[in-house]
Amino acid sequence: MATTLITGGTVVSATGRGEADVLIDGETIAAVLAPGSQLLGTDVAASVDTVIDATGKYVIPGGIDAHTHMQLPFGGTEASDTFETGTRAAAWGGTTSIIDFAVQRYGERVQDGLAAWHEKAAGNCAIDYGFHQIIGGVDEDSLAAMRGLVDEGITSFKLFMAYPGVFYSDDAQVLKAMQVSNDTGLLTMMHAENGPAIDVLAQQLAEAGKKAPYYHGIARAWQMEEEATHRAIMLANLTGAPLYVVHVSAKQAVEQLAWARDQGWNVFGETCPQYLYLSLEEQLGGFSEEWGQFEGAKWVCSTPLRSRQEGHQHHMWQALRTNDIQMVSTDHCPFCMKGQKDLGLDDFRAIPNGIGSVEHRMDLMYQGVVTGKITLERWVELTSTTPARMFGLYGRKGVIQPGADGDIVVYDPNGHTSIGMGEGRTHHMNMDHSAWEGYEIDGHVDTVVSRGKVVVDGGQYLGAKGDGRFLKRGLSQYLV
Amino acid sequence: MATTLITGGTVVSATGRGEADVLIDGETIAAVLAPGSQLLGTDVAASVDTVIDATGKYVIPGGIDAHTHMQLPFGGTEASDTFETGTRAAAWGGTTSIIDFAVQRYGERVQDGLAAWHEKAAGNCAIDYGFHQIIGGVDEDSLAAMRGLVDEGITSFKLFMAYPGVFYSDDAQVLKAMQVSNDTGLLTMMHAENGPAIDVLAQQLAEAGKKAPYYHGIARAWQMEEEATHRAIMLANLTGAPLYVVHVSAKQAVEQLAWARDQGWNVFGETCPQYLYLSLEEQLGGFSEEWGQFEGAKWVCSTPLRSRQEGHQHHMWQALRTNDIQMVSTDHCPFCMKGQKDLGLDDFRAIPNGIGSVEHRMDLMYQGVVTGKITLERWVELTSTTPARMFGLYGRKGVIQPGADGDIVVYDPNGHTSIGMGEGRTHHMNMDHSAWEGYEIDGHVDTVVSRGKVVVDGGQYLGAKGDGRFLKRGLSQYLV
Amino acid sequence: MATTLITGGTVVSATGRGEADVLIDGETIAAVLAPGSQLLGTDVAASVDTVIDATGKYVIPGGIDAHTHMQLPFGGTEASDTFETGTRAAAWGGTTSIIDFAVQRYGERVQDGLAAWHEKAAGNCAIDYGFHQIIGGVDEDSLAAMRGLVDEGITSFKLFMAYPGVFYSDDAQVLKAMQVSNDTGLLTMMHAENGPAIDVLAQQLAEAGKKAPYYHGIARAWQMEEEATHRAIMLANLTGAPLYVVHVSAKQAVEQLAWARDQGWNVFGETCPQYLYLSLEEQLGGFSEEWGQFEGAKWVCSTPLRSRQEGHQHHMWQALRTNDIQMVSTDHCPFCMKGQKDLGLDDFRAIPNGIGSVEHRMDLMYQGVVTGKITLERWVELTSTTPARMFGLYGRKGVIQPGADGDIVVYDPNGHTSIGMGEGRTHHMNMDHSAWEGYEIDGHVDTVVSRGKVVVDGGQYLGAKGDGRFLKRGLSQYLV
Amino acid sequence: MATTLITGGTVVSATGRGEADVLIDGETIAAVLAPGSQLLGTDVAASVDTVIDATGKYVIPGGIDAHTHMQLPFGGTEASDTFETGTRAAAWGGTTSIIDFAVQRYGERVQDGLAAWHEKAAGNCAIDYGFHQIIGGVDEDSLAAMRGLVDEGITSFKLFMAYPGVFYSDDAQVLKAMQVSNDTGLLTMMHAENGPAIDVLAQQLAEAGKKAPYYHGIARAWQMEEEATHRAIMLANLTGAPLYVVHVSAKQAVEQLAWARDQGWNVFGETCPQYLYLSLEEQLGGFSEEWGQFEGAKWVCSTPLRSRQEGHQHHMWQALRTNDIQMVSTDHCPFCMKGQKDLGLDDFRAIPNGIGSVEHRMDLMYQGVVTGKITLERWVELTSTTPARMFGLYGRKGVIQPGADGDIVVYDPNGHTSIGMGEGRTHHMNMDHSAWEGYEIDGHVDTVVSRGKVVVDGGQYLGAKGDGRFLKRGLSQYLV
Repeated sequence: MATTLITGGTVVSATGRGEADVLIDGETIAAVLAPGSQLLGTDVAASVDTVIDATGKYVIPGGIDAHTHMQLPFGGTEASDTFETGTRAAAWGGTTSIIDFAVQRYGERVQDGLAAWHEKAAGNCAIDYGFHQIIGGVDEDSLAAMRGLVDEGITSFKLFMAYPGVFYSDDAQVLKAMQVSNDTGLLTMMHAENGPAIDVLAQQLAEAGKKAPYYHGIARAWQMEEEATHRAIMLANLTGAPLYVVHVSAKQAVEQLAWARDQGWNVFGETCPQYLYLSLEEQLGGFSEEWGQFEGAKWVCSTPLRSRQEGHQHHMWQALRTNDIQMVSTDHCPFCMKGQKDLGLDDFRAIPNGIGSVEHRMDLMYQGVVTGKITLERWVELTSTTPARMFGLYGRKGVIQPGADGDIVVYDPNGHTSIGMGEGRTHHMNMDHSAWEGYEIDGHVDTVVSRGKVVVDGGQYLGAKGDGRFLKRGLSQYLV
Repeated sequence: MATTLITGGTVVSATGRGEADVLIDGETIAAVLAPGSQLLGTDVAASVDTVIDATGKYVIPGGIDAHTHMQLPFGGTEASDTFETGTRAAAWGGTTSIIDFAVQRYGERVQDGLAAWHEKAAGNCAIDYGFHQIIGGVDEDSLAAMRGLVDEGITSFKLFMAYPGVFYSDDAQVLKAMQVSNDTGLLTMMHAENGPAIDVLAQQLAEAGKKAPYYHGIARAWQMEEEATHRAIMLANLTGAPLYVVHVSAKQAVEQLAWARDQGWNVFGETCPQYLYLSLEEQLGGFSEEWGQFEGAKWVCSTPLRSRQEGHQHHMWQALRTNDIQMVSTDHCPFCMKGQKDLGLDDFRAIPNGIGSVEHRMDLMYQGVVTGKITLERWVELTSTTPARMFGLYGRKGVIQPGADGDIVVYDPNGHTSIGMGEGRTHHMNMDHSAWEGYEIDGHVDTVVSRGKVVVDGGQYLGAKGDGRFLKRGLSQYLV
Repeated sequence: MATTLITGGTVVSATGRGEADVLIDGETIAAVLAPGSQLLGTDVAASVDTVIDATGKYVIPGGIDAHTHMQLPFGGTEASDTFETGTRAAAWGGTTSIIDFAVQRYGERVQDGLAAWHEKAAGNCAIDYGFHQIIGGVDEDSLAAMRGLVDEGITSFKLFMAYPGVFYSDDAQVLKAMQVSNDTGLLTMMHAENGPAIDVLAQQLAEAGKKAPYYHGIARAWQMEEEATHRAIMLANLTGAPLYVVHVSAKQAVEQLAWARDQGWNVFGETCPQYLYLSLEEQLGGFSEEWGQFEGAKWVCSTPLRSRQEGHQHHMWQALRTNDIQMVSTDHCPFCMKGQKDLGLDDFRAIPNGIGSVEHRMDLMYQGVVTGKITLERWVELTSTTPARMFGLYGRKGVIQPGADGDIVVYDPNGHTSIGMGEGRTHHMNMDHSAWEGYEIDGHVDTVVSRGKVVVDGGQYLGAKGDGRFLKRGLSQYLV
Repeated sequence: MATTLITGGTVVSATGRGEADVLIDGETIAAVLAPGSQLLGTDVAASVDTVIDATGKYVIPGGIDAHTHMQLPFGGTEASDTFETGTRAAAWGGTTSIIDFAVQRYGERVQDGLAAWHEKAAGNCAIDYGFHQIIGGVDEDSLAAMRGLVDEGITSFKLFMAYPGVFYSDDAQVLKAMQVSNDTGLLTMMHAENGPAIDVLAQQLAEAGKKAPYYHGIARAWQMEEEATHRAIMLANLTGAPLYVVHVSAKQAVEQLAWARDQGWNVFGETCPQYLYLSLEEQLGGFSEEWGQFEGAKWVCSTPLRSRQEGHQHHMWQALRTNDIQMVSTDHCPFCMKGQKDLGLDDFRAIPNGIGSVEHRMDLMYQGVVTGKITLERWVELTSTTPARMFGLYGRKGVIQPGADGDIVVYDPNGHTSIGMGEGRTHHMNMDHSAWEGYEIDGHVDTVVSRGKVVVDGGQYLGAKGDGRFLKRGLSQYLV
């Protein structure tokens, strides 16, 4: 097998950094070595097949995006990135693993949903991928099926307190599913918004003629995220299930998580770059020549962007520092404006919910290091190490240590990245716009190694469809 | 230089574990390698001078005890462990670095205090050692001297809100010292108890004939620890100083820390094994044939042991899980019963304050892993990785990575340790009793390597006086 | 019209006490006078028709029990007190007004439900009575009807987050009803328990053969009361509706109320004597020769009795002091053991929920004064003044001042009351048992005056069916 | 004795309002009567000496200002209002009782201080007056003397955590005094600011040339009020002393009070009109032609005015609604600009601390009713009923009931009051400026009756020096 040495860089972990070389043998890390060493008389660099010079750069474990929705059917259309295009874009951005969501809907069998998603992904991915299981219809059959998921390497499932009539579980269903979570060790992931109440508000707004994208954010009031978060916490407390709340956007929801965590409960939260940078007023209330007031549709996602005036974004960065939020995923769920988002041109309720960010997460979070909001170590922890621990991948992923997969990113702090699709810019996601147009990053993903193979380097994509394999995950390694 | 390979073990870090071999070259870790590897054609084990078989055992970074008081003058006597005896006992227990306290008293020069402590330690230590600086007399001269400490590798100083007339600083003094902390990056360590109020209570108890050791704990009421903790936090908030509260024992003090930390402030807390295991009722209120009611003197320390009925111990373990408390030190400050503790036979106020635990910290905390109170990873984090980060040693200490000092402990989870001085037991601290008599640990420190030298192995001490060197520390690496 | 003078007593209000005489002219208080006064030359006592000597006794405004369910259809039977028997028992116990609940069920018209309850009560009551409106089926019709309630003197309505299939409203329904509350000033009363989740737990317990009354309390876990309380608060916050949570029993629910109130929100809570005195372990887990393990059925009510070990009762008394709970009602809903409670002999789910206490509230709360848990003034405030303010009766009820109805209780702090049905005891509620058997009270209701008429005196009931009139209430006077 | 009838008005209490006439016989309220009544055949209005027509107006118990400093020696000068001028101004403003502070200084006898203040006040006051005792020097002698205060009708004493070298008590002293508070029932009043720390900041500012009045507010940072408030709470908790924190101005200090009160502790707080209306930026940072930057000296008081940008004023109004703050006093401590405030023309530290408001409290707080910040009832509670209960005057003062002193204010909600000294304005305090210049109030104090004597009516002062008598107070009636 081929050997690769990444030499001269600063290896960064969740707890610190150090000068070290990383030796990959085949698909796996074989050693971490003192830089430039003559190891026991052997000149390491001279003995390997490939040497990657990381001098002056950071060497970090490949990013893990634990929340993506490739080609998800939603709102009468389908997320515009396939597993092929989406994972390739991820690789471009320094992400070497994703965890996507297989879907079971009401009346369907869990096994069938999972099989369908395996089929979509198999042989198409640029990087390794795993699945969470969406349980959109909790009943006796699906509850029984859930008990078999751990053996399939699916160690987490997601419920929705939102979207009545689509993915929604009522509290009786949530309770039953959480009991399975407690029994099996499956991690309960929760979309925590009070869907029934939100739908009333949305309908009232629409009936009052308030149909622009902005009202998507008004209908999905922070109170309804805070409330559902608290409810999920208490149901988890009652059943003993570990709980992971996805895409937290409201500062009051963070306060609920902090309260639960202060009591030592196994409650976790994820946020996304959009909730750290973007806002209700600026984006959802946006305007353009092309789209007019409908411009805001680009940022229609759920949970919604929150008011900057109310300080949610500031508070969310703080939550990353206080560890009240433990990790950052993208909730990548891209839709084009033409033919997809514009389904809701006349009514925000018909706009497919989702933003595409899978390519930009590592960069956007690194910019938080540049601006002093998080440390370099916390960057690695939030984007790779904790995702690995949370979702049963640590050891193989999320850390640079012998035996781990050779998933490495060489990141240049002196590089620069211009995000978007405007002149001189490009992105690799299958979208006709960028939610991040114009963002400038003071750093750059130089080289991406995925299981020992250099897939991005020198501005070239060197990988191939099917490079990525299914990740059979273990139970969460982050519980206390 | 000699090479050593620790092979076959499970390397544990703050974030996870993995099977790996550790190669030490001279004093420094040269590589972490896939186990049993033929590295690039070289049979590593065959190429090194020494092989340590760690099969079935944990390989962890050497313990760092950031709070010890070797030969501290206190209460008319001196702590019974010298730097020689105390650091040797530490080594026996898997601790390979200590940070002790140089003392400046009112009217003395800081530089002189530091020099005196350098003199006590130099050439006598079994393991590496650093110093914090106690500032017992804040005035214009000492404030100026503090600004030079960083260059000396002394990057933290300690103030006392207790002990009026001895080490006590009033709030004006605390404020001024914290301003220097904010300016220089020196970490402010605080003994947070309201000394003036406690002294009133102690005197009233003594005047009422309540002079047994138990009343030490009554006089030092939790309210006075909680209060001082809050006060220190607010003075730190006002000045911008990072704050580290030592030997936290009251659950209400923890709540203050949690409150400050939830707001993202740089406030940290340390606890000690005695506050996790021992109690006011059982220990301070103890009785023996030999000492009668004075038996409790063995556990007279400040902050005091707390009531088990009030649940402090339970809450403190939880705080370790929630990271409201970040690390565990010993506050090792040993005094013999005969000739030292018995100075207070007639009045608890004259009992020298202190417990000796430097030898047992790693074991006692490992027992928390056995009983499910903390994870294996958290054990390493609390006892080594965070102390290193907190006090500017990370990279050299606190982590197993190339370039780090070869400070390694091989810990056997199938071993057993009986603590104390009774039949079949021994300890290596210079004390005539053990505060931990009879404690049984389901694990054992098998091998201790300090800067590449095996100092404990096979039940033998293989080190020598003077093995340990002074640690010039950098600024804290744990701040957010 | 007849005149009555209550002389020589200590008049107690919510804020203090003073020696004063009370002159009632016809049905109304005409004056409060300095004791024994020759008012402007007139000898008052000599000029009135009736003099009641209250020397050495407390003179307080008649009790207001704002939560009763006379002859409520529930669980296939009907509460055993009619408006006649129940209000007479209330009068015996010093309560001169009740607010009962008219019921609208799913598919019924609100107006019809209200009319039906008017018919049940009219001409039958011993004391004045008002109605809250239960909205058991929120739909367009009932929402419209609610807007007319204020004009009917019905200024509060109650929703249930419990009892799916019976009274339950889902969150969409709650939201819509609260919007009407915000628009009209109607006070939203909430039964805050997560019914769907509770029903799952209850079914699982029953399926596991755990069918004794005790499991009623296990199924209705505190987490589900806390959760629903929080949810109700957030929906109220979203809509602007004032919220009043009925029969709070869990300390964690109190914490939610306290949190909301600390932010200045119009959120209120009521508790009942059973949650102050009785417990899960002792009552719901009770045993008797007659009923065996089914003895506990006497105390099956919802919310359920809580664990004494967990300290709910202690915390609830404290909440009365801190005003986190503002008033005490009974939730009087009596069922006999024979023929009613015994419907659930084989399954706790079939036991009609309810306890009868309407007669004992004033005594039971006075015992809290005797034992130092609340002040004398707070007793009056909790049982009369705040209920009057909360529910739009103040001025007419809840206070001794000119113009108010002549509703007065003369309470003897040197008297004694033995509660129950055992030898030498009697109660006046239509029940075959007492939930309060054996309780001894260090005080006694001596004289009860209702709208100027002495209805209880000298151990005799002097009133008549039909004395009580319907109370058309105004909007809440307690909002901030 | 003369009789007076106040007729036709709306009598307002802390819990509600009602139409009633009030009959005063001599100095005391004889009856509260239904309006216009022919009481038992007597035409009341025709039978009295004086009739005051209060039609369309509010009839409220006379205001009680529990925090004034008439002719207080401070900062090398003396507060500019004597007991004569100050109490007359109070009467003009609807305040019929004050509680001033007798002063004991370090080295002085408590008895002497009290006697001195009795001498200053006796025969000079327009309205009734009581004393709190300032203990400026806690030692064995003063502690012993404190135990005799209750018998003197002095049931509260005040300590200072600020002003080292003047009134300051250290924590040992505070603890000892609080122990006496716990033993005797004396209420502990606390000036809660960390004086030693503040003095460091003040000196540093002055040394940096920051000497304008604005820096008074900067030096007295909110952190130092919050901290001292917490410290006072914990010392009170330790000793069992009831605690009353004076002149609370920082929202964070309110949070500390709320936290303590949520736990059921006897902790209370007072604020003043200046902390509800005025701000650091606008007033302390003010500028005028006459005084330039020194204009801000008019509002130099301690605790200082707080930043409006930080929202303290808004939060303080909310605390009045949530009862986290229980009452409003003035901390009336007037100094003229010329000859007094101007002592600090060159250094804010030399500006006498104090604002004069005794005349305007009732009006300023009524404006809070007009603007919807508090209810009419809460106005009465904050300014009269709770002060009476808190300081052992209830029954005599603070309520309109038979037996109470005839202290009544007729307040016209249709009147208007222009505050200040500008054209067309006047005030009656002995000051050369007004801190409230230009404030307009939508209400007016029409008539003031003090112990049955009309002292203000028709824009005339009808009282006389010496009308007021010393109030021997009982223990607090507000404790739980």
